[in-house]
Amino acid sequence: MEQTIPYKIYLEEQEMPKQWYNVRADMKKKPAPILNPQTLKPVTVDELSAIFCTELAKQELDDTTPYFDIPQEIRDFYKMYRPSPLVRAYCLEKKLGTPAHIYYKFEGNNTSGSHKLNSAIAQAYYAKQQGLKGVTTETGAGQWGTALSMACSYFDLDCQVYMVKCSYEQKPFRREVMRTYGASVTPSPSMKTNVGRKINEEFPGTTGSLGCAISEAVEAATSQEGYRYVLGSVLTQVLLHQSIIGLETKAALDKYGVKADMIIGCAGGGSNLGGLISPFAGQMLRGEADYKLIAVEPASCPSLTRGKYAYDFCDTGKVCPLAKMYTLGSGFIPSANHAGGLRYHGMSSVVSELYDQGLIEARSVEQTEVFKAAEQFARIEGILPAPESSHAIKVAIDEALKCKETGEEKNIVFGLTGTGYFDMFAYQRYNDHEMSDYIPTDEELQKSLSTLPVVE
Amino acid sequence: MEQTIPYKIYLEEQEMPKQWYNVRADMKKKPAPILNPQTLKPVTVDELSAIFCTELAKQELDDTTPYFDIPQEIRDFYKMYRPSPLVRAYCLEKKLGTPAHIYYKFEGNNTSGSHKLNSAIAQAYYAKQQGLKGVTTETGAGQWGTALSMACSYFDLDCQVYMVKCSYEQKPFRREVMRTYGASVTPSPSMKTNVGRKINEEFPGTTGSLGCAISEAVEAATSQEGYRYVLGSVLTQVLLHQSIIGLETKAALDKYGVKADMIIGCAGGGSNLGGLISPFAGQMLRGEADYKLIAVEPASCPSLTRGKYAYDFCDTGKVCPLAKMYTLGSGFIPSANHAGGLRYHGMSSVVSELYDQGLIEARSVEQTEVFKAAEQFARIEGILPAPESSHAIKVAIDEALKCKETGEEKNIVFGLTGTGYFDMFAYQRYNDHEMSDYIPTDEELQKSLSTLPVVE
Repeated sequence: MEQTIPYKIYLEEQEMPKQWYNVRADMKKKPAPILNPQTLKPVTVDELSAIFCTELAKQELDDTTPYFDIPQEIRDFYKMYRPSPLVRAYCLEKKLGTPAHIYYKFEGNNTSGSHKLNSAIAQAYYAKQQGLKGVTTETGAGQWGTALSMACSYFDLDCQVYMVKCSYEQKPFRREVMRTYGASVTPSPSMKTNVGRKINEEFPGTTGSLGCAISEAVEAATSQEGYRYVLGSVLTQVLLHQSIIGLETKAALDKYGVKADMIIGCAGGGSNLGGLISPFAGQMLRGEADYKLIAVEPASCPSLTRGKYAYDFCDTGKVCPLAKMYTLGSGFIPSANHAGGLRYHGMSSVVSELYDQGLIEARSVEQTEVFKAAEQFARIEGILPAPESSHAIKVAIDEALKCKETGEEKNIVFGLTGTGYFDMFAYQRYNDHEMSDYIPTDEELQKSLSTLPVVE
Repeated sequence: MEQTIPYKIYLEEQEMPKQWYNVRADMKKKPAPILNPQTLKPVTVDELSAIFCTELAKQELDDTTPYFDIPQEIRDFYKMYRPSPLVRAYCLEKKLGTPAHIYYKFEGNNTSGSHKLNSAIAQAYYAKQQGLKGVTTETGAGQWGTALSMACSYFDLDCQVYMVKCSYEQKPFRREVMRTYGASVTPSPSMKTNVGRKINEEFPGTTGSLGCAISEAVEAATSQEGYRYVLGSVLTQVLLHQSIIGLETKAALDKYGVKADMIIGCAGGGSNLGGLISPFAGQMLRGEADYKLIAVEPASCPSLTRGKYAYDFCDTGKVCPLAKMYTLGSGFIPSANHAGGLRYHGMSSVVSELYDQGLIEARSVEQTEVFKAAEQFARIEGILPAPESSHAIKVAIDEALKCKETGEEKNIVFGLTGTGYFDMFAYQRYNDHEMSDYIPTDEELQKSLSTLPVVE
C-alpha cells in the first residue's frame, strides 16, 4: 500500500481558498439569462432583490467576475467544519483490485450532514449584512433546512422553514435538529399563508408538496418586513458558494502532485456537481487542462440524459424566474418508489450549458444498483453515504473496474456529498429487498415536457 | 481572535500513536482483580478465554505492561477516521466571553457516531486473528452495536447483535445501520436462546432489558463453535484501546505547546473518560505533571458521587466476572425519564481506583441543564452533540465561566464523544419542554446497594 499519500488529505488553514470561483466568467458562451416570469425578459438585480438578498441577487446575475472574496465571517465559520478531507480510498481500491487511484471529497462531516452548509452560511451572512430579521425557505427531507437553521443560528437570524407535511410527520429527526438550532418549522400546507390556506381548503388532508412549500416560503418572505427567501440548489449563486468544494479538492490534489483523470459528481439541482467541477471546468475552458467530468443522475429523474434544453419554470408554483436548463418539465414528479433524492425536474443553468457545450458527460443509474454500491462503500470505507452521494460512488466503482480490465492507473475523483443517517428508511427498503427500480416511459416524459412555457 | 492555533488540530499520519497506553502499569496500587462469579477467586486468562478472545483476556488481566503495540491492521483502519480533530472552541470562548481556552477532542466523525469504534475494531481484529467465525454482543440504543457491526464487516466476521426489544422497535435507524453493515440484529428476548425462550415464557410481551440481552449474547457465544462475546465499555481492555483518544489529545496539545489545566470527560461505564485521561493520569502517577481530571455523570445515575466502592456484578444477569468498582448495585435502573445515556450501574475498575486514590474528581449534573448546554454548544460550535457527551460540555462551560469571573486563562480540554443524530427523540422532549429531572432518593440507592454480593 502506498504511504506517500495519506488516507486523508487535510489542507492547512492557511491553504484554504479565500475566494469563490465563478465558472461563468471563463465561459465564452454564457448560460442563458433567467427571465422574469411575468415579462419573459431577463430579470434585473432590482427585480430579484424583492425576493433575494441584494448581494445574492448580484452574484446570481454576474457572469463576468471570475473570483469573489469570501468574507472573513464566512471563512471563520468554514473553519469550524472545513477544510473537508480529500480521502484516498485505499481500502476500496484494494477490495476492487483496481490499479486506479480513487479519491473522494467528503462533505458529510458537519451536523447538516451535507455540502448544503457551504451556501447556507453564505446566504445567511448576506441576509445579516443587509440588516434583515430573517429568512424563509422550504425543505423536503430536511437537509437544506437543517443547514440553513445552523447558519441562521450562528448569525442570530430568524429562520422560518416550510417543511412538506408528509416529511414533517414521517421524518421527525431532521425537524427536531432544525428546532434545536432555533428554527421554526411549519408543516406545509399551513394555515399561516394565503396559498397554504387555499390549498388546505381545496385539498383537505393533503400531505403537501415541495411546490406548495416553495410558494408558502416565498409568500412568507415577501409579506413580512425584513425577510427574504433563500434556496439551497439550482441557483448560480449556490454554485458559486459550492465552488469551495472544487477549489479545496484541486488544492489538495496539487499539493500531492496528483492530476485527476476524471471527476464524478451526483446531480440533482446541480449545486454539488457544479461546485466540485467548477475549477476543473475553468481549466478546460481556458485550454489549460483536460478532464473527464461525469454527472450522475437517477434513471428515474433523468433531466440531463433524457430531458430537453429549454426555458422552464424553476418551481412548480411558477413564481420564480424562468431558467434555460435541461428539464423534464416543471410538472414532472419522480415515481413514488424513487428513494434516492435528486428528484428535481431541472438542472442548474450553468451545469446545463457546460453539458450542452460537451464539457460534461452524463450517466443515469438505477436505484437498486446505487444502494448496492452504497452498501459496498459503507462496509469497505466505513462511511454510510447518503443515497444521493451513492450515485457518484456507483459510477466511480464502475470506472475503477474498467481500469482493472485495461490495467490503467487512472486517478478517479468523486464527490461524497453527505451521510445517510437520516435516510435509514430507504436503506431499510433495500435491506428488506423491497426496493425496485422505475424508469419513466417516453410517453410520461413527453407529457410532462408538454407543459414547458413558450419563450420566444 | 488568535490565529496561531488552528480551529482544528489534525495530527499527521506519521504522528499518530503506534501503541496503546495501559495506565495500570503506572499505578502503585492496582485496581482490584476481577473475580470468577462461581469461585470468587481472581479469574485466570484461561477462564476468561471461554467467553472472550484469548488476546483480549490477556490484555484484560495485564496490569504491568505499560504499552501495547497497535497491530498494523488496526492502525490502517484507524487511518480511515482518525486522527480525530482536537478542536479549539474559538466561537464558544467568544460567546461566553471567557479568557479560558477551550479545546475538545471530537470522536463523532465516523459512521458509528462515537468513540466506541476505537475498541470495536480492536476486538474484531483479535477475534479474526484467533480464527473465529464471529462475535456476539448486546446493544441498548445501538451505539456499540453499530460500531461493532462496522468493525466486523471490515474483517469479514459474523456479527450477532442482541438488541433490547423496545429499542429494536423504537429506534429502527440504528438497527438498519447495523443491518447495512451485515450484522444480524435480533430483538431480545428472542426465541433463539434458552434464556430468551424462558423469559418470553415467563413474561409474555416483555420489551426486554440490557441484562437479558447480555445473557442471550453470552449464551449465543458459548453455545456456537467459533464465537466469542465482546463488550464495549467498563472492561479494562476497552480502556486500553480507548487510550488512543488521550494519546492523540496529548500529542496535539504538545505539538502546539499547550499545557492542559483540566481535562473533563463524561462517565458511564468509563471507557471514554478512562481513554481520554489515561496518558495524563500516567504523568500524574509518575510525578511528571499535574492536572485536574473531572468525571461528569448524570445525577440520575451517580455511581461515583453517590455509589459504594465494592465488588459487584458487572451485569444484571450475573454471568460475568465480579469487579471492584464504584457501583449503585447491579439491580439499579435509572428513572424512566432519564434520557441522556450513561445509565450503567457501575464504573470501570480503573477509573474507580483512580477516583478512590484522588486523581480524579467527580461531578453530577441534571439532564435539563445538560440539554441546555447541548443546545448552546450546537448553536455556537455547529456540532449536534450526543446527550452523553453533553455532560462534559456542561461542566466545561461551567469552568469557563468561572475563569471569566477570576480572569484566569486556563486551558480546558474536554472529550466530545459523539453526535446526537440518533437521539432526536430526547432532543424533541427538551424542545417541547417535556423533559424533567430525577435524582434517586437515598432510600432507593440503599435498596439497590443492598443487593451487593458478599465478597470476603
